[in-house]
Amino acid sequence: MTKSSYRVALMLGCALVIAPVRAQRDAASTVPPLRIDKQGSFFVGGREIHSDTLASTATRAPSGTITVDQVYVHYQVPAGAQGHPVTFIHGCCLTGKTWETTPDGRMGWDEYFVRKGHGVYVIDQASRGRSAANPSAINRTRLGKAAVDQLPPVYAVSHEEAWTIFRFGPEYPKTFAGLQFPVDAQAEFWKQMVSDWVEALPMPNPTVPALSELARRLQGTILISHSQSGIYPFQTAALNTSGISAIVAIEPAACPAATDSIAPYTRMPILVLFGDYVNLSTRWAPRLKACRDFAQRANTAGGKAEVVLLPDVGFHGNSHMLMQDRNSLEVADWLLAWIDREVEKPTR
Amino acid sequence: MTKSSYRVALMLGCALVIAPVRAQRDAASTVPPLRIDKQGSFFVGGREIHSDTLASTATRAPSGTITVDQVYVHYQVPAGAQGHPVTFIHGCCLTGKTWETTPDGRMGWDEYFVRKGHGVYVIDQASRGRSAANPSAINRTRLGKAAVDQLPPVYAVSHEEAWTIFRFGPEYPKTFAGLQFPVDAQAEFWKQMVSDWVEALPMPNPTVPALSELARRLQGTILISHSQSGIYPFQTAALNTSGISAIVAIEPAACPAATDSIAPYTRMPILVLFGDYVNLSTRWAPRLKACRDFAQRANTAGGKAEVVLLPDVGFHGNSHMLMQDRNSLEVADWLLAWIDREVEKPTR
Repeated sequence: MTKSSYRVALMLGCALVIAPVRAQRDAASTVPPLRIDKQGSFFVGGREIHSDTLASTATRAPSGTITVDQVYVHYQVPAGAQGHPVTFIHGCCLTGKTWETTPDGRMGWDEYFVRKGHGVYVIDQASRGRSAANPSAINRTRLGKAAVDQLPPVYAVSHEEAWTIFRFGPEYPKTFAGLQFPVDAQAEFWKQMVSDWVEALPMPNPTVPALSELARRLQGTILISHSQSGIYPFQTAALNTSGISAIVAIEPAACPAATDSIAPYTRMPILVLFGDYVNLSTRWAPRLKACRDFAQRANTAGGKAEVVLLPDVGFHGNSHMLMQDRNSLEVADWLLAWIDREVEKPTR
Repeated sequence: MTKSSYRVALMLGCALVIAPVRAQRDAASTVPPLRIDKQGSFFVGGREIHSDTLASTATRAPSGTITVDQVYVHYQVPAGAQGHPVTFIHGCCLTGKTWETTPDGRMGWDEYFVRKGHGVYVIDQASRGRSAANPSAINRTRLGKAAVDQLPPVYAVSHEEAWTIFRFGPEYPKTFAGLQFPVDAQAEFWKQMVSDWVEALPMPNPTVPALSELARRLQGTILISHSQSGIYPFQTAALNTSGISAIVAIEPAACPAATDSIAPYTRMPILVLFGDYVNLSTRWAPRLKACRDFAQRANTAGGKAEVVLLPDVGFHGNSHMLMQDRNSLEVADWLLAWIDREVEKPTR
C-alpha cells in the first residue's frame, strides 16, 4: 500500500464518527492492524499531604492523607520500536485527549507516531484529567475556615474565547480563509475542554519535575509540548538535561526568557513550531517573536534551535490545534522527518 | 504457549515497575504483541450551557458557552474481535485508570479483555478525569455572587478511609489475612484517586444517559460497573434496554430498589460480583444483602440475575479493587467464562 493510499484509507476508515462503531471498524479494516509490544499507564511525581478539609458534608470524613501533584502517563510501544520515545504534553484547558482521535474522527498523533515506530507517552498535566486536583481549598472555604478569595482560581475558557485563542478565525464564529481545523466537528472538540487549575498551582508547575522523572526513566525522550505547556520541556531541561533527546514546542505560550541561563538549551536539538495566521493574532505574534529571540540566543551559545512556521515549509491554513487539523498527518510526517534528520539516533 | 505459562510470562514482563521502561519492554517481549484493529477516543453525552462565572480573575473572560456532562470514552478493538464489546465504568474517587495497568505494574483488565477478543470501552464518569467538571459554582462564590454553602460539595477520600472502604483490612494500615491486593504498591494506587464531584451533580448522574447513548451506538455492550457506578447500568437499562447485552455489577454501592420497576432487568443476564471479607464490612454486607433481594425479585419476574461471591467459586482474598488484585487475571478468566456461558453471542 502506498503512503498516500494508506492515508486515504485512514481517512475513509475514520470519517464515520456518527455511525455505529462496528461499522466504523469494518470500514477501517483497510488500515493494517497495529502491533503493540507493550502498553499501559502509570504515574510520575506526586507527594503525600495531610488535609483537614478533604470534605465538607456531614457524611464524609474531612481529615486524612491524600496524594497530589502526580502526573498520569498512558503509553504504547509498537512491536519493533526503533525511534526515540516521544512524550506528548497538552496545553491549556485540555488533557491528553488532545493527541488522540481528532474531533472529526481521524487518527490522532498518539497512534500515528506509534505506527511510525516510536514509543508514545501521553500525559495529563498535574491537577487535570486523570491527574488528581486537591479539593482542600474549596472545602476550607465551604467550611468557613478560609475567606472566599482563598478559593482556587479555577477557570474554564468559553467556546467563544477559545475560538480566537486557537485561531479558528478572527472572532467567533468567523473562520480564517483556508482554515484546516475541522470546525464542522467543533461540538466534539468543545467536549475535550476541561477546567484549568494551573493558576492554583506553584511555579514551576508540578508537571515539570514529573516530566523530569519520566525523561530519566525513558533514558532519552523527545518532549513535545503544546501552548500553555510550551515552557515545561525547557523548565524540565533546566532541572536536568539527562533523558531529554530533543524539545519540540508547538505554539508555546512562552520560550525561555532572556534572563534564563542558556546553557541547558545548547545540549539538545530544539524545534519551535507554529501554524498559520500567526501575524493576525495579537496573542501569538509577540510569542513567536520571543521564541525567535530565544532561538537566536541558543544558537549564538552553540545550540541548535529552529523556529519554523508551517506556511514556510508548505503547509497552509493551520490553527493553534495543528495536531487536529485536517492535514495533521502530513504535518506529523514533516515533524517525523525533522526528528529523523536532527535528533541523534537512540543507541540500542 | 499454555495459558499458565502465558500468565507467568505476563507477570515476569510486568514486575519491573521501577526499572526503566525499555528494560520492561524487553522483559515483556515474551508476551505476544497485541494486534489492534481500531482504537481511539470520543465523547458521548454533553450539553452546552451559558455561564457568567467561568473565571474569577481580572485577566480571564467570565462569560460564555461551555460544554458539560459529556463522558470520555477510550476504546480498543482487537483484530478478529468476536465477543461483545465491554464497557468498563469506574467507581468513587477514581477514573478509567482503574481498569488499566495495576499499581504493581501488571496488565489491566482493559488490555486483557482485548486480548480475549472483546472490543473494550473505558469511560471517565461525567465531571471526572477527562470528562470536564464545571467550575462556575466555585467562581460564583469566589466573585461574591453566591454564598459559601453554594460551593460544590467536592470531596476526596483519604488513604486511611479508602483502606477500609476498599477492604484492604479492618483499619489502616492492617491487612486482612490472605489479602490479594498488592499493598506494597499502595503509593502508586493512591495516585489513581481523584476528587469526586458526584454530590454536585443531578440524579441520575449525567453518566447514565451518556452510557445509554454509548450502548445504542455499540449495538450491544456488556456494561461492567464498579462500586459507586454500580447502579448506573441498571439506571441505563431503565432508560432503554436496547444496546445492553448484559450487566455485570462489581461490588455495587446499590442495586435497584424494591420500589423500582423490575421489568427492564428481566431482559438481559445480570451478574453481581463481590470479593472476599464482605461479612466483615459494615459498609458492604448490607449492600450485598440488598443485591441478593434484588436478584431474587428479578428472577421471580422471569429474569436471570446471579449474585456471586468470589470465595464461593474458589477465589480467596479479594478486596473491593478486585480488578487490581494479584489474582485479577484469574478472576477475569472466570468472568470471561461467565460471559461466554450466559450472554447470547453477538450476531455478525
